[in-house]
Amino acid sequence: MKSQINIGLVGLGTVGTGTAKILLENRDVIARRVGVPLELKRIVDLDVTTDRGLTLPSGVLSSDLPGLLNDPSIDIIIELIGGYDTAKRVMLDAMAQGKHIVTANKALLAVHGEDVFAAAARAGVDVGFEASVGGGIPIIRSLTEGLAANRCVSIVGIMNGTANYILTQMLKENQEFEESLAQAQAAGYAEADPTFDIQGIDSLHKLAIMVSLAYGTPVNVKDVFTEGIQKVTSLDIQYASEFGMVVKLLGIARLHEGAVEARVHPTLIDNHSPLAQVNGVYNAIHVVGDAVGDVMLYGQGAGALPTGSAVVSDVIDIARNIQRQASGRVPPTSFPLDQRTPIRIRPMEELTTRYYLRCMVLDQPGVLSKIAGVLGHHGISIMSVIQQGRQKGQTVPLIIMTHRASERSVQTALQEINQMSSVVSQPTTLIRVEDDGR
Amino acid sequence: MKSQINIGLVGLGTVGTGTAKILLENRDVIARRVGVPLELKRIVDLDVTTDRGLTLPSGVLSSDLPGLLNDPSIDIIIELIGGYDTAKRVMLDAMAQGKHIVTANKALLAVHGEDVFAAAARAGVDVGFEASVGGGIPIIRSLTEGLAANRCVSIVGIMNGTANYILTQMLKENQEFEESLAQAQAAGYAEADPTFDIQGIDSLHKLAIMVSLAYGTPVNVKDVFTEGIQKVTSLDIQYASEFGMVVKLLGIARLHEGAVEARVHPTLIDNHSPLAQVNGVYNAIHVVGDAVGDVMLYGQGAGALPTGSAVVSDVIDIARNIQRQASGRVPPTSFPLDQRTPIRIRPMEELTTRYYLRCMVLDQPGVLSKIAGVLGHHGISIMSVIQQGRQKGQTVPLIIMTHRASERSVQTALQEINQMSSVVSQPTTLIRVEDDGR
Repeated sequence: MKSQINIGLVGLGTVGTGTAKILLENRDVIARRVGVPLELKRIVDLDVTTDRGLTLPSGVLSSDLPGLLNDPSIDIIIELIGGYDTAKRVMLDAMAQGKHIVTANKALLAVHGEDVFAAAARAGVDVGFEASVGGGIPIIRSLTEGLAANRCVSIVGIMNGTANYILTQMLKENQEFEESLAQAQAAGYAEADPTFDIQGIDSLHKLAIMVSLAYGTPVNVKDVFTEGIQKVTSLDIQYASEFGMVVKLLGIARLHEGAVEARVHPTLIDNHSPLAQVNGVYNAIHVVGDAVGDVMLYGQGAGALPTGSAVVSDVIDIARNIQRQASGRVPPTSFPLDQRTPIRIRPMEELTTRYYLRCMVLDQPGVLSKIAGVLGHHGISIMSVIQQGRQKGQTVPLIIMTHRASERSVQTALQEINQMSSVVSQPTTLIRVEDDGR
Repeated sequence: MKSQINIGLVGLGTVGTGTAKILLENRDVIARRVGVPLELKRIVDLDVTTDRGLTLPSGVLSSDLPGLLNDPSIDIIIELIGGYDTAKRVMLDAMAQGKHIVTANKALLAVHGEDVFAAAARAGVDVGFEASVGGGIPIIRSLTEGLAANRCVSIVGIMNGTANYILTQMLKENQEFEESLAQAQAAGYAEADPTFDIQGIDSLHKLAIMVSLAYGTPVNVKDVFTEGIQKVTSLDIQYASEFGMVVKLLGIARLHEGAVEARVHPTLIDNHSPLAQVNGVYNAIHVVGDAVGDVMLYGQGAGALPTGSAVVSDVIDIARNIQRQASGRVPPTSFPLDQRTPIRIRPMEELTTRYYLRCMVLDQPGVLSKIAGVLGHHGISIMSVIQQGRQKGQTVPLIIMTHRASERSVQTALQEINQMSSVVSQPTTLIRVEDDGR
């Protein structure tokens, strides 16, 4: 048993600062929980001058990365620099020195996780990444421990606070995407370059990590269908509400005859479902297990302190392992490496679900019949139709809600419909509907 | 490392059957997670003849409790008989033989937890009780591990599915308590003797366990104010909705100047708060941590398989500890015994909150002024008043919503009001309002 566990932190940005603050300000309660103090001994950042509101003993903050990596007294290294190359090098170097790792780097884990986890197994060290999904929400632990008795039926969630904030604003303020994005940037909820958030890539990374843990399989992010929210319009959000639905950017994984459906896209869900109530920057993950039924975890998906909370909970977990010499007790892959078996990710064209279609058509007799004819020809049956704002000879939206249909048929039908240039004036908007996305 | 972990199960009722089913049907995925199989070797129940739909190898089910307790090959004993005496004896005997314990017995843990945890520490064994709170919801693990970086600010939750089902039915069907209770019993959501559920005692047990873990303190259940839902009327539920609120049976714990407020009672919460959306037999626990902000966990709070899911997740957890000789890695008290410090539970009279009051008054001029006078005299200011259904000379409800006031003042004022027999015809109904019960 050590009388103190020493921590090194690399990257003193937003989350790094939040993490340091928690380790310093909650030092007493954390020491009581672990039984010994956790000492934030070294912090490394390129910028050692900016005042981040932390009271650090002198000598703690430096730009000396090798000094940290080679300090034999450091037990756990927290990597919060983000990105791929340097972050991965820091992790591999640290593990090679027998140090445990905590990170919030979803992009790195989703893309290079297999390398990191293999290195951790070789070195016999722990890798904690609760902070990589859902900010402070303890979802990683729930998948690997709290719900470990279950076969995972599905994971459906709002995994990106920026996208959810934008969609919430579009609904509440009746705004278009660009306006809400600009507001989110002004409010600090979206970055200057919001690509990863609005294109669904951040959600993809998180979904890939969860699928990997829940099903005990490596996941190639290229196999996961990903569509962002850039093309969602205020018009679609309004029509959705006429159907009693809201538009959310969801990550969806579902076990399906031995394969896993995994996809990220704007999705229509029922107004009364729990996920529909999740607004602004909040995240929520809805898990269905064969035994537990449905469980939902909800909380702030980002931010210095919520994410720092998850980082420090991993540090505590690893410290408890160190004290009992039980590192690797729960492998970072949830299933031990030799117990994993690759599961097929179902190609998107095999999906069947309901669809919302918005065709922009010339307002003339017979248009609905032509479009319905194409859909019917491809075996797609219509549940309901909205035709509004009749302006003879002009372009008007024709909204179609289908019954369950196959993605392959719907895409083929849409190609045909979009080519009907005599009646259709713009490419048709498609939004998938999630019936079980409670 | 063992090549197999052997399990004994005592009590094959509803949850016991669900637990056995999961251990049998998910045997393969559980073995893959742990790395070795978990073998359900012995089940003990007084009734060995009823068909529970389980396919058990012959010899597994018997009524031979000593045979189980003395079987040296058994590593983990699952106690699911409930009640105090026999259950406690089974646990203490099993621990004395070096066996680990998993239980769903909230009543026993809330009342005799300290004895159980002391015995576990002496024996160096684990005690898992995720199933004791919130059915399959991984809330115990979240308090002890996932949110361990935080000082707990508050825990507010719907902790009893039976009471929540009854209140939901009362609202949706516009029914009185007795009618909804009878329906709940007919639907199998309430027991023949529903005392613990409707009187708030079950919620009290769960809240006491959570307070103990979150704050690292022993809790005497007698210190926790508890009021059931028997006196909630359809009338109050209707008036609540006029204020944009719903009535829920909440367990509430909140850190307050070094003491902890802990109480269970029917509570008015805002219609739009996440807890207000939790209906029927679902439970939800809303935790606020100083770092993480607010986190909510939601799921089925009871039932064979959801509760069995939590039981088996504890078995998996303990099996992982056995394989790494790390038993006691996280103490069942969350904080190691020598790191706990008793925290004062705030007496109820120190509470300040908002109050809903329903006075049944004679419909005559000056009544409101008299009642408002008494409230004002005790420093209680009124936020709004509803007087409806004027029937001269008859008894009508006078609804008063107060600003924040002290429980002591409100109780004193109500005594005075109830004695005004010339205008008040029944004891006044009081329901506390939770502003932060999001």
